[in-house]
Amino acid sequence: MKNYQAYLVDLDGTMYKGMQCIEDAPAFIEKLKKKNLPHLFLTNNSSLTQQQIADKLNGMGIASEEREVFTSSMATAAYIRQANPDAAVFAIGEEGLMAALEQEGLTLSDESADYVVIGIDRDINYEKLAKACLNVRNGAQFISTNGDIAIPTERGLLPGNGAITSVVSTSTGKLPLVIGKPESGIMDQALKELGVSRDETLMVGDNYDTDILAGMNAGLDTLMVFTGLTTEEQLKEHTEQPTYTVHTLKDWLDKL
Amino acid sequence: MKNYQAYLVDLDGTMYKGMQCIEDAPAFIEKLKKKNLPHLFLTNNSSLTQQQIADKLNGMGIASEEREVFTSSMATAAYIRQANPDAAVFAIGEEGLMAALEQEGLTLSDESADYVVIGIDRDINYEKLAKACLNVRNGAQFISTNGDIAIPTERGLLPGNGAITSVVSTSTGKLPLVIGKPESGIMDQALKELGVSRDETLMVGDNYDTDILAGMNAGLDTLMVFTGLTTEEQLKEHTEQPTYTVHTLKDWLDKL
Repeated sequence: MKNYQAYLVDLDGTMYKGMQCIEDAPAFIEKLKKKNLPHLFLTNNSSLTQQQIADKLNGMGIASEEREVFTSSMATAAYIRQANPDAAVFAIGEEGLMAALEQEGLTLSDESADYVVIGIDRDINYEKLAKACLNVRNGAQFISTNGDIAIPTERGLLPGNGAITSVVSTSTGKLPLVIGKPESGIMDQALKELGVSRDETLMVGDNYDTDILAGMNAGLDTLMVFTGLTTEEQLKEHTEQPTYTVHTLKDWLDKL
Repeated sequence: MKNYQAYLVDLDGTMYKGMQCIEDAPAFIEKLKKKNLPHLFLTNNSSLTQQQIADKLNGMGIASEEREVFTSSMATAAYIRQANPDAAVFAIGEEGLMAALEQEGLTLSDESADYVVIGIDRDINYEKLAKACLNVRNGAQFISTNGDIAIPTERGLLPGNGAITSVVSTSTGKLPLVIGKPESGIMDQALKELGVSRDETLMVGDNYDTDILAGMNAGLDTLMVFTGLTTEEQLKEHTEQPTYTVHTLKDWLDKL
């Protein structure tokens, strides 16, 4: 087994479920810290800021600093800034997306935008969708922070960003560039942030279709943990398998 | 040429463009009335009531009565009432849809709905979409008044009902039953309303992809008029051709 120098760690289903900490998550992160192994918490969540997510983790007993959190909103903002630091961006999204765009020094604009960026927005309305369509039809590049079609909540599965984004893709006929897992955009940005090479980094997650595929798509080794969405039975149906699987992260502690 | 006993007449591009009357439309309708030929104005517009559309037509000099207007909302409400008059319906839409559902005596409900119906709603918000998704996931039949992906406005093409509806189909994986043109649902309901047989009825419209296809799908002869969306050049690309084509409805007056 390789001696991995850095870790990318999914949140929902890997560190916590909703508001509940997963049992062996704190010990796993503690050991990463003790061994001085650089790591990022990697989430498709585009609505929260780094600080809000770090606070949530700390509140559950999972030691984390703001700079260890990397969201699809941050990856999106970094992607745009690298492509065109002077870009005008029309953005639909919540605090996490707006903060990330501001942090990258990007200019927000309702009209003549170079980019239309959509992240989950529970204050979505027709006017925002109309402006997104008009800008995309006028040639703006269309970007989606993540393609998740549903969000698990206590009420059931509510529409996710992939569903909201489909208004604009259906109306304009243009598909968005999706940054979040399983796409490689978020992985490329996270690896830049970590500063460690791909072949020394392990992607850890519970969801085959997002976390594990993201790792595979980015050429990383992957560690699948069965504390979240994908079950052992479901995993058997896939041809391409994760590099490693464990029942809980406790089973990985002696590999660190 | 057949001697048609009834006419189904599209509105936008056939009778008017936006707020402007098309030149020969008033004379065409006048002649239908003079010859006592039953006709319905057939529109995918789900947002306006019968009365509002009749008022708009009369205001342009096109003689029309409320009962001569048939909308995708009315077809949708009639379809549900015929399938289950006691159905509980969760509806997203504007005045035209709500009035049509009420007129058919259907019960509106946010939860445990038998049907989820979506028409264009410029007051759309996340909570409405969330309720639609929850009801569809709980087994409600999913119906869309019409599949138009864009609405032409003076600002440009804004999202149409087909785009709004895609939030729910993308999130739940369930495709809606679409009632409006080119689907046959609206045609079946309109023919019932007219009370004239299919082979004696002519469908008139400017849009190949909605009006003409709707006529063909419902087994009606079709009259295409080049005052609206589809051009003669574009029509040539289609294998299946309308029964008749005219440059303006003036060219059809002597056939009435």
